[in-house]
Amino acid sequence: MKVLITDHPWPDLEIEQSICSSAGYELVAGPIEAASEQVINALVAEHDPNAIMCCWAPVSEQAIKSPHDLRVVARLGVGLDNIAIPAATARAAWVTNVPDYCVEEASDHAVAMLLSSWRGIQHFDRESKQGLWNSASARLSRVRNMTVGVIGYGGIGRVTARKLSQGFGARVLVSSPSLLRDHVIGSEVAPGVVVATTEVIQHEADAILLHLPLTEKTHHLVDDAFIAQCRRKPFLINVSRGGLIDNDALIRALDGGLLSGAGLDVVEGEPSPPLAVIGRADVIATPHIAFSSDASLAELRRRCTEDVVRVLRGESPLHPCNAPRD
Amino acid sequence: MKVLITDHPWPDLEIEQSICSSAGYELVAGPIEAASEQVINALVAEHDPNAIMCCWAPVSEQAIKSPHDLRVVARLGVGLDNIAIPAATARAAWVTNVPDYCVEEASDHAVAMLLSSWRGIQHFDRESKQGLWNSASARLSRVRNMTVGVIGYGGIGRVTARKLSQGFGARVLVSSPSLLRDHVIGSEVAPGVVVATTEVIQHEADAILLHLPLTEKTHHLVDDAFIAQCRRKPFLINVSRGGLIDNDALIRALDGGLLSGAGLDVVEGEPSPPLAVIGRADVIATPHIAFSSDASLAELRRRCTEDVVRVLRGESPLHPCNAPRD
Repeated sequence: MKVLITDHPWPDLEIEQSICSSAGYELVAGPIEAASEQVINALVAEHDPNAIMCCWAPVSEQAIKSPHDLRVVARLGVGLDNIAIPAATARAAWVTNVPDYCVEEASDHAVAMLLSSWRGIQHFDRESKQGLWNSASARLSRVRNMTVGVIGYGGIGRVTARKLSQGFGARVLVSSPSLLRDHVIGSEVAPGVVVATTEVIQHEADAILLHLPLTEKTHHLVDDAFIAQCRRKPFLINVSRGGLIDNDALIRALDGGLLSGAGLDVVEGEPSPPLAVIGRADVIATPHIAFSSDASLAELRRRCTEDVVRVLRGESPLHPCNAPRD
Repeated sequence: MKVLITDHPWPDLEIEQSICSSAGYELVAGPIEAASEQVINALVAEHDPNAIMCCWAPVSEQAIKSPHDLRVVARLGVGLDNIAIPAATARAAWVTNVPDYCVEEASDHAVAMLLSSWRGIQHFDRESKQGLWNSASARLSRVRNMTVGVIGYGGIGRVTARKLSQGFGARVLVSSPSLLRDHVIGSEVAPGVVVATTEVIQHEADAILLHLPLTEKTHHLVDDAFIAQCRRKPFLINVSRGGLIDNDALIRALDGGLLSGAGLDVVEGEPSPPLAVIGRADVIATPHIAFSSDASLAELRRRCTEDVVRVLRGESPLHPCNAPRD
């Protein structure tokens, strides 16, 4: 049995290799960085794997159809937007992911970007390193006085809301379809965390944090129309998926002063996001690392490979994302 | 009556002017940036004030002795290390400060620096802006897995400890002379906040935050001997006073890998701190702005000026820091 790992944004494959070897399976690897759909299709055709592990590389319908005996497509991560799930289901292959392994990290990262902006850390560190030591221009914020809107209230949204409310005493408004279905608007779902419509968040929030998956419904959620409803020049943070934000609308909003800035760990156009977005002084950008820590990476790689081994042994995976046997 | 404000790291004097004018007092001002002792002495000799308000400028024994009828030296801030208090007491002038106005800000700032470092925000934002989008080198931390040592447990230390423990779930060790006098080592003073000796903090902490005043006893608290006891290459954060750290020892420790980095809002040598410290990639530096926010600045300026007016009217100040009438 052969396992193909299409991309792996970490320097070695020791964990994956050791688990596959112990189980008696061969591991072959594509490049570290995610390649194009064409390159991945060619890799799959070349290796004819029984399992495909992928981080960010696109695993297309063609890639999934071409192997002779594909059993599983395993995402090294949470989101599944780069995998043609119906094609896997159609040929009775499992799709798996690794839920919840980076809840703390993604949330830490979002809060780190928010605090960095509100406390002027980037800006003034840059000035200091240029030999300036001038505090008179500081226009900073007391987090406790701020209203933060969190859109999406899954594992990560919940933890971010707790950090900002219980930790910092900020007023936190949260919005998600399931919250709005199950709770009265204005009710508290945790101490200091209040259910709100997205519209109320647009009107009242000093920062808006996106903690939701990319789907057809959420694609370009933040566009010109969304931003036009924002009243308090919010700082916008995205650690989820680049496609949630329309880059051109974001640039227009920053140029026009409708947003005070943005913290982006994900940007449409990755892994070559437009410098017109990430090069701006009012944008803090990191290269899709919010999921990452020494602890989360080790957990991610171990759990993903273990689910692959389970499937190749004929067992069901721990974290199925489709129902290929129904 | 005349009020001299020696320095004011904010762009205007509207708040101070308006309160002094309403009370019928004249306000005169030195430069925005803190000048040298000699310049301040000359300013005082020139204006012969009844009240001196100062932010960071040195108010020396000579400056305090020279006016004909000095009633108060009012610090625009908390720390008093730039004021010759005994000289004021000797001539029956009050010394005042503004306690607690920036507890949230200083604590927000310290946590912002810590998160920025542990999530690689500066480093990767800089790389992104150079056109790199490479996550494979990320070695980041999950805050929840970390141990943070807080030295000093006054208002700011308490709030920082709460944010990191209740907000992020970090293990927080706190140390101060009064804690060690009143509590058993190892006991919890707040949920997840444990009393420790400084030695335990040196041995176990992944980050050390300084939240204590500069006194003769705390001068160069962090020196070669202190750092030699640190076991986990901690990230060092100082938002209190530059003199707490020996710059040369810090440089040696960073060069030698004994510390993983430093976040410094205060540096010995301000307002021209050595670039050998603040210019380093492993140092995040901001120009003494941890106290600052729109909210805290307005509060600081109002409360300080109001105490000056109280004294000039013949009342006692709300926030006396000496006992000139005993």
